[in-house]
Amino acid sequence: MGYTIAQKIIKEHLVCGEMVVGNDIGLRIDQTLTQDATGTMAYIEYEAMGIPRVKTEKSVAYIDHNTLQTGFENADDHRFIQSVCKKHGIYFSRPGNGICHQVHLERFGKPGKTLIGSDSHTPTGGGIGMLAIGAGGLDVAVAMGGGAYYITMPKMVRVNLTGKLSPWVSAKDIILAVLRVMSVKGGVGKIVEYGGEGVKTLTVPERATITNMGAELGATTSVFPSDEITREFLKAQGREEDYTELSADADAVYDEVIEINLSELEPLAACPHSPDNVKPISELEGQKIDQVCIGSCTNSSYLDLMRVAHILKGKTVADGVSLAIAPGSKQVFNMLAMNGALADMIAAGARILESACGPCIGMGQSPNSKGISLRTFNRNFEGRSGTADGQIYLVSPETAAVSALAGVFTDPRKLGPAAEIELPEKFLINDNMVIAPAPVEEMDNVEILRGPNIKEYPKTSPLTDSIEASCSLKVGDNITTDHIMPAGAKILPLRSNIPAISQHCFTVCDKEFPERAKTLGKSIIVGGENYGQGSSREHAALAPLFLGVKAVLVKSFARIHKSNLINAGILPLTFQNPADYDKIKLGDMLELPNVKKEIADGSAVTVVNKTTGETVIADCELSDRTRAIILAGGLLDYTKENS
Amino acid sequence: MGYTIAQKIIKEHLVCGEMVVGNDIGLRIDQTLTQDATGTMAYIEYEAMGIPRVKTEKSVAYIDHNTLQTGFENADDHRFIQSVCKKHGIYFSRPGNGICHQVHLERFGKPGKTLIGSDSHTPTGGGIGMLAIGAGGLDVAVAMGGGAYYITMPKMVRVNLTGKLSPWVSAKDIILAVLRVMSVKGGVGKIVEYGGEGVKTLTVPERATITNMGAELGATTSVFPSDEITREFLKAQGREEDYTELSADADAVYDEVIEINLSELEPLAACPHSPDNVKPISELEGQKIDQVCIGSCTNSSYLDLMRVAHILKGKTVADGVSLAIAPGSKQVFNMLAMNGALADMIAAGARILESACGPCIGMGQSPNSKGISLRTFNRNFEGRSGTADGQIYLVSPETAAVSALAGVFTDPRKLGPAAEIELPEKFLINDNMVIAPAPVEEMDNVEILRGPNIKEYPKTSPLTDSIEASCSLKVGDNITTDHIMPAGAKILPLRSNIPAISQHCFTVCDKEFPERAKTLGKSIIVGGENYGQGSSREHAALAPLFLGVKAVLVKSFARIHKSNLINAGILPLTFQNPADYDKIKLGDMLELPNVKKEIADGSAVTVVNKTTGETVIADCELSDRTRAIILAGGLLDYTKENS
Repeated sequence: MGYTIAQKIIKEHLVCGEMVVGNDIGLRIDQTLTQDATGTMAYIEYEAMGIPRVKTEKSVAYIDHNTLQTGFENADDHRFIQSVCKKHGIYFSRPGNGICHQVHLERFGKPGKTLIGSDSHTPTGGGIGMLAIGAGGLDVAVAMGGGAYYITMPKMVRVNLTGKLSPWVSAKDIILAVLRVMSVKGGVGKIVEYGGEGVKTLTVPERATITNMGAELGATTSVFPSDEITREFLKAQGREEDYTELSADADAVYDEVIEINLSELEPLAACPHSPDNVKPISELEGQKIDQVCIGSCTNSSYLDLMRVAHILKGKTVADGVSLAIAPGSKQVFNMLAMNGALADMIAAGARILESACGPCIGMGQSPNSKGISLRTFNRNFEGRSGTADGQIYLVSPETAAVSALAGVFTDPRKLGPAAEIELPEKFLINDNMVIAPAPVEEMDNVEILRGPNIKEYPKTSPLTDSIEASCSLKVGDNITTDHIMPAGAKILPLRSNIPAISQHCFTVCDKEFPERAKTLGKSIIVGGENYGQGSSREHAALAPLFLGVKAVLVKSFARIHKSNLINAGILPLTFQNPADYDKIKLGDMLELPNVKKEIADGSAVTVVNKTTGETVIADCELSDRTRAIILAGGLLDYTKENS
Repeated sequence: MGYTIAQKIIKEHLVCGEMVVGNDIGLRIDQTLTQDATGTMAYIEYEAMGIPRVKTEKSVAYIDHNTLQTGFENADDHRFIQSVCKKHGIYFSRPGNGICHQVHLERFGKPGKTLIGSDSHTPTGGGIGMLAIGAGGLDVAVAMGGGAYYITMPKMVRVNLTGKLSPWVSAKDIILAVLRVMSVKGGVGKIVEYGGEGVKTLTVPERATITNMGAELGATTSVFPSDEITREFLKAQGREEDYTELSADADAVYDEVIEINLSELEPLAACPHSPDNVKPISELEGQKIDQVCIGSCTNSSYLDLMRVAHILKGKTVADGVSLAIAPGSKQVFNMLAMNGALADMIAAGARILESACGPCIGMGQSPNSKGISLRTFNRNFEGRSGTADGQIYLVSPETAAVSALAGVFTDPRKLGPAAEIELPEKFLINDNMVIAPAPVEEMDNVEILRGPNIKEYPKTSPLTDSIEASCSLKVGDNITTDHIMPAGAKILPLRSNIPAISQHCFTVCDKEFPERAKTLGKSIIVGGENYGQGSSREHAALAPLFLGVKAVLVKSFARIHKSNLINAGILPLTFQNPADYDKIKLGDMLELPNVKKEIADGSAVTVVNKTTGETVIADCELSDRTRAIILAGGLLDYTKENS
């Protein structure tokens, strides 16, 4: 029986576990990347591990998220990351050099390699045939230290592409079509592989648009074969030597196959407020729009923006529309500035933004109240734009540009014959905004620049024999990580400062929680079903850790948050009998008299409510490895003990 | 006896008063401009006046301040302003079209005309021979409605320029040299005129750099002659017909003459935290720097940025430095994108920002903690950068660019011979980002787009016969308008919403003040010397007006704030005997039994402290016009009554 592309890469990198769907497996990681909103904490964690130099083939730190800099915190974080990189052997991509995924694809990604990144759109690297997975900051820190990265062996989905895109239909429309079929939950526990004759019609940047937004399927990652087109792209980037051919075996077995005929696709939009709420542009045509934003790690490549410039040339953005364009990388920006395309965009009235994530993560360009905004981005969650009632539609660059000129939703096919825009034979190569680390012999001379907002990783300790602690919070079902640890322009700059950010922990549910938990010293949170759903942010575990939360006892957990709790050394407990949820109230004193032995033995955990005298039995589902992590007091301590 | 340039323009526009230093004079205003941070309120005020179409020759609304858009408020304000412009006859410069003063100079300014703008750097227009003055939003609204603008007839200062700038010494160094001589208070009550042989060596953009930063002298405005160089500039902008020759009479009399020999100047810097704290770069050389920002209404012309690009070409910004560049206008941006200069900047690692005010007003790019930032801007007040302990130095574009490459303060003269960079014979002219107003016959069809953050002008009422009100706040000496109405990224978006912004009124002195004042309904503020110094923001009067403040009784007022209080219909009272300050305490009930008659008669105002039984006598210094304004309940009501 043959292997899929992903299985081949996994096999090559397997350090433990069996390649059986559902099993925990450990992977050797070749490359890592971080962005700055998650990176500061990842490097604080790396420092706490005490490993002098990273052990990966290449680790790169990018600055692309917190680039508005409305206070001292962002610039301090950038300097901190830069100094850590210099000392510990990491490449540093300076602010202005572009969005991590775009730059990584251009300059560092290699077919067949494993990459984890502390950003959920890391799967972009799948466009060049990497196994590229989004992970928590601590996972990245561990991988930089040479540790394995653990995942559950996923199922394999094949998306079979046939035919060829019609003019004005683009890669964005392909992934929107996949989202329409699979939904935002359809990829959970799966790797999505692209194959079929249609693959040959797609350039690497187009493939990367598709794998990038595979994140919205909930998939572990997405991957394209590495073929002649990949080789051409790498050659044009001056690094043909990084090429390896990579394809699925003819007899590879997939758990699921999806057919997409490219010839049948038309321009699509993901309507508010979900990336899988997909409709044809033809159904939306003529509706007035207020804003258009072009850019993000999904659609800001040279090819994307050349097509946009071609559409805008000689025209003017409609009166009622604000058009913002942020090139994906310095390479793209520079090439557009050299060949006149940027001048065409400016002449048409585009607002040119710094090469960074910008409005995609709500960093500026929030639309007007109830504003209809067409964006080439990957997420249109309610409120993410910074405008609570903003109506965000995800579209291709072509649809975005044409609609910006018309002032209404417009099908780009109206434009008639499309210009042939091709990738250059040679990209402009200038890595002067990437700073190499100091040589090992000079690393001791590098001073770490730690601004006043950059604080240490919270104190952890091994699991104690017993726990006696009050219930400091009782919440209901479907608590998201946005309830636990809100984001937004005000709170994001505190991501390097757990003591400060923890003051916002759970305040959307209960303003008093942070103060109460800190006063108690030790406490336990009680919750309902699906606790910790949503964004993967590890701060939703680190803030409770800082506030003294020892265990979270709920009806059920969302997967990633449970894993973040374990990484933070917080016990993830589930009620054996969900009805026992009613037996604990806010303020009750709880005792777990034999918790350490119970966890070590893999048996159920007894929870005595000393206030009522009742006893509740809880489960704590752990693998051997996660059990060892909990006993050690978290992944950081576990890694230190085992390195 | 001959006239100075300014006296000629004043004489031409005088509608009332005598041209005698110290007298109140009223001027007919030809042009107005607004920016968006002050503009929303100015247009709310204009609407409240009920005049259908503006009566100026040209009024332009620019969007350049609130361009980060971290919430819905900014985009709502932009749309509101755009719709008001369309309806009421105002030209609208869309976001992305550039900084008001730069664009106005390029496309609209005319020698010999009067211009007032709701931005303190409006004197930029003096570079092209306009009488251009910064004013409050309500003053601009009144001028748009055809009302006169009132100033105190200023003294005349002549700055006599001789010689010629050495290579690498620039216009910025000239105004820094003037600031070194005159200080930030030296221009108060004066107009600064430039003359002498040296004038002929300066282009219009260079002259505009100088008049722009004349604002930092505290001057009413600054002005250059309009000569052949002005004609050439206007011709290159395709509007030679706007040219008029304008110069001072040979026998014009100046109250003060300052001699500057351009040949003797060297590159200078204004050191933290005042624009007049000027030192030669040679004294600072070698000190490490963290950030460089190039742009702002002071130094972002085509000429400035071409010089910067020339210095950066083929080089890389030093490792430890973040270099941000914001072109001053779409015209500049577009030309740089066409001629390769922008590509040179990007290649060197510059972070290219939208064409707007940006970091100059603290809108992003805050430096790191204690960061040393070299900026081509006009103000380096403590904290204005968004970083409380940031160390801001104001320098020329040449010094900024050279230092960015070196990573340390560097005298640009080190570079050797300077390239000759000249103004183009023809600028790129494309006004497609300026929207003309609707024709009069269509104005009734224009809907005003009022977002939920845009509220009405506060309620006013004519002065009552007597006032009985508690003392709601007692403050000390030197209260600034930043105490009264703080700014910053959080509060600025509320500038269109007096009810909301008033919740921050005086909270830096007393958190309870807004609530207390609102509960009282009517109240009086008591303060010390120099009350209301600092920025001219009219919100420092409008928020107290909203909160029910009827009078402010202090030892002395700062001039502009007193005028804003009068405009808002709040009585500006001063203790006849400053020691009486001690006779009133917070919460005392005060009565002004005959206030209306006393004001109308121009006599002193009796203030009875009903809590202590003591009586205090206050003065209210008013001209006939300001007396009528106070009696009417503010400038808006006065204007409505008299139009």
